[in-house]
Amino acid sequence: MSGWNTLLVEQEGPILWVRLNRPEVLNAYTSEMGTELVRAFAQADGDDSVAVVVLTATGRVFCAGADVSAGAGAFDTESGEGAKNFGPADGSRGNSNFIRAMMDCRKPSIVAFNGSAAGVGLTLTLPCDIRIAADTAKFGCVFTRRGLVPEAGSAWFLPRLVGLSTALKWCLTGALVPATEALAAGLVSETVPADQVETRARALALEIAANCSPVALALTRRMLWHFSGDTGPGGALSVDAALNIALGAKGDVHEGVAAFLEKRAPDFPLTVSADMPATPWWPDEPENRRQGNPA
Amino acid sequence: MSGWNTLLVEQEGPILWVRLNRPEVLNAYTSEMGTELVRAFAQADGDDSVAVVVLTATGRVFCAGADVSAGAGAFDTESGEGAKNFGPADGSRGNSNFIRAMMDCRKPSIVAFNGSAAGVGLTLTLPCDIRIAADTAKFGCVFTRRGLVPEAGSAWFLPRLVGLSTALKWCLTGALVPATEALAAGLVSETVPADQVETRARALALEIAANCSPVALALTRRMLWHFSGDTGPGGALSVDAALNIALGAKGDVHEGVAAFLEKRAPDFPLTVSADMPATPWWPDEPENRRQGNPA
Amino acid sequence: MSGWNTLLVEQEGPILWVRLNRPEVLNAYTSEMGTELVRAFAQADGDDSVAVVVLTATGRVFCAGADVSAGAGAFDTESGEGAKNFGPADGSRGNSNFIRAMMDCRKPSIVAFNGSAAGVGLTLTLPCDIRIAADTAKFGCVFTRRGLVPEAGSAWFLPRLVGLSTALKWCLTGALVPATEALAAGLVSETVPADQVETRARALALEIAANCSPVALALTRRMLWHFSGDTGPGGALSVDAALNIALGAKGDVHEGVAAFLEKRAPDFPLTVSADMPATPWWPDEPENRRQGNPA
Repeated sequence: MSGWNTLLVEQEGPILWVRLNRPEVLNAYTSEMGTELVRAFAQADGDDSVAVVVLTATGRVFCAGADVSAGAGAFDTESGEGAKNFGPADGSRGNSNFIRAMMDCRKPSIVAFNGSAAGVGLTLTLPCDIRIAADTAKFGCVFTRRGLVPEAGSAWFLPRLVGLSTALKWCLTGALVPATEALAAGLVSETVPADQVETRARALALEIAANCSPVALALTRRMLWHFSGDTGPGGALSVDAALNIALGAKGDVHEGVAAFLEKRAPDFPLTVSADMPATPWWPDEPENRRQGNPA
Repeated sequence: MSGWNTLLVEQEGPILWVRLNRPEVLNAYTSEMGTELVRAFAQADGDDSVAVVVLTATGRVFCAGADVSAGAGAFDTESGEGAKNFGPADGSRGNSNFIRAMMDCRKPSIVAFNGSAAGVGLTLTLPCDIRIAADTAKFGCVFTRRGLVPEAGSAWFLPRLVGLSTALKWCLTGALVPATEALAAGLVSETVPADQVETRARALALEIAANCSPVALALTRRMLWHFSGDTGPGGALSVDAALNIALGAKGDVHEGVAAFLEKRAPDFPLTVSADMPATPWWPDEPENRRQGNPA
Repeated sequence: MSGWNTLLVEQEGPILWVRLNRPEVLNAYTSEMGTELVRAFAQADGDDSVAVVVLTATGRVFCAGADVSAGAGAFDTESGEGAKNFGPADGSRGNSNFIRAMMDCRKPSIVAFNGSAAGVGLTLTLPCDIRIAADTAKFGCVFTRRGLVPEAGSAWFLPRLVGLSTALKWCLTGALVPATEALAAGLVSETVPADQVETRARALALEIAANCSPVALALTRRMLWHFSGDTGPGGALSVDAALNIALGAKGDVHEGVAAFLEKRAPDFPLTVSADMPATPWWPDEPENRRQGNPA
């Protein structure tokens, strides 16, 4: 499990850097890359020394989309050609196990678009929490131009992140949109010159790691992703009240308030591996299974 | 079925132009107009030579709202006066069959606001996919000022398209908002001088028609409308994976990838009338009924 | 029931002004304040002479968040310290009965942020309908920095009001954001100099009170909050059609159309206390219980 074929994975302090690393083909996506993304996010999830994941890429492009080097049959996974790059290498014909792994990861994740992203190169980033981009990057929901539909759950993710009006326009035209439009729509929360993308992502990640309780972060990202899709506030109200009463009796809140009152940096005692409360409303959450909670 | 009383319906290449056409009363809406809109969108849906619908209007205003020429009793559909313009001409007391017809239409639709829209003149456009406007247009959710509530499903459509904050402000004040505010909120994706609205709508429609697979377009708009309202990404994930595997073995994907690799325009072989996969999650979809799928 | 310990509540014409009133501690929130907010919004709900609620605060800050004067144990409601400010004074351990009271209130509400708001000082405003702010105000979703999760249902409210991308960034960093960013995200619909916040809120409230039917306002806010969370437009379509047919036979629509045609201000005859149609889809709506409707 030590080697990576399609990614470069390195820890720097509390940050796990995950880099798409096939620059010779503009980091084109294959099933193997999907499998390695599952592994990288599982590693971040399980290691208490990792506070934040930053997903970026080597070279000048983030990801040109699915690898179509197999030619016109590239997406025909029934045939030998298509199976080359998109076969069931990860045990899933749909090749989207990485989406589940990203959502389930208990560490917040930042995408640093060093350059353009198209097709799955864009949709694979949607379950991450914060996105920033080089001001030269372009983004393309190109599916309809290839005869395909928006994949990797993006028919749910994209309208939730950029609004339905923008999602419809981007997906129905299939055109490339500039970083300014991605910023206005909220796909990315800021743009910077390309040579400053990593610096800015690092600063954001370190700000989160230095100031926020890891358990509170894990619960907060899960709550926002889950309850933003709920039909009313009732579920969130009952869950947040119970969680905050439970957390209020534990060490992180005591430390967080003390640090605030004393105007100093906090030193939170709780860890994600040992102190995570159950979240029975999160689908297929391993924590729930371990603790015998209903899914 | 050849004549139109309230609309002007013309095909230009792959575009079906649908124009509200009662300019002498600022295109005020009546039940007959609703019935004709059902017919126009059903025509676009059933005709493979139509790739995109553009909905606009004749004259200087898009639609001033419901026809109140019957006076203060205009909305009292129990009385003789109100029944004049809003009687059950389309078989529906609620007069909103056109909403269902627009949503069900398998062709993407663009609204070109040549001028202002108020009340139902605005809400009737919300199930369309892309909206552009004259920079002089104004928009009014005037319902509370008439003693009415937002109709035609707009309590669901409007927050999804412009966000709940904006929807609340527009509907609770009932005030007219300028095109700049509609643009910032995402109701329209661009504004242009009034005399360029048709030109710009035509260009957008032709860009879609020239580059995108009709079957992929029909599926994509349906997926975004449906799964954007879902409580989580699970439904979208399972549907998009299955659809892309099915489409990957068909001609459009082969042609889409080949055209991309050869840097030429695609010539997609599939048609909406013959090659549309079933979408059993779409409510009351005729395709499902024909194929014996559960609704 | 006449005295207020934490609020200043005054009626000015059709406006009920509700002011957080503990300026000596930056209006820090306690359970008693939550209980008094329930009482203030219930008063607005039940009094036909109140058309609009404006929620603001005395002093230079809106609300600094929960009262942490009990020190590091402030949120430990199991201990004596924490119970001092956040005990079950309002009968709810979760201290969020005020959220339900604000949502249930049949009058539209405007928040006038005279200054900054953090933690519960921000989340307690989210069930209100319109928010404006001093251009010097800052906003902080500081929960993860205290070891807590977003409370008062804000995991549902915040993504719905500012989009999921922004909600994730604000809650995961826990940083203070300036008014310009709150405006761009739609948390507030406009910013003005601090000394004009009350003037602008008053003008908005009076515009609503002068032009809109109270019954239509009560129904409209309820519909937008409810159906914006629905999985599809079907529920909204059936409800709005039935409501508008019922309203169309009543006095407000007649008056609203007559006033429009005669270019004069309307004088709506219906009252919220006597003429509110049942809304059986609204959870725990007292009206429903009184009329024997299913919840």
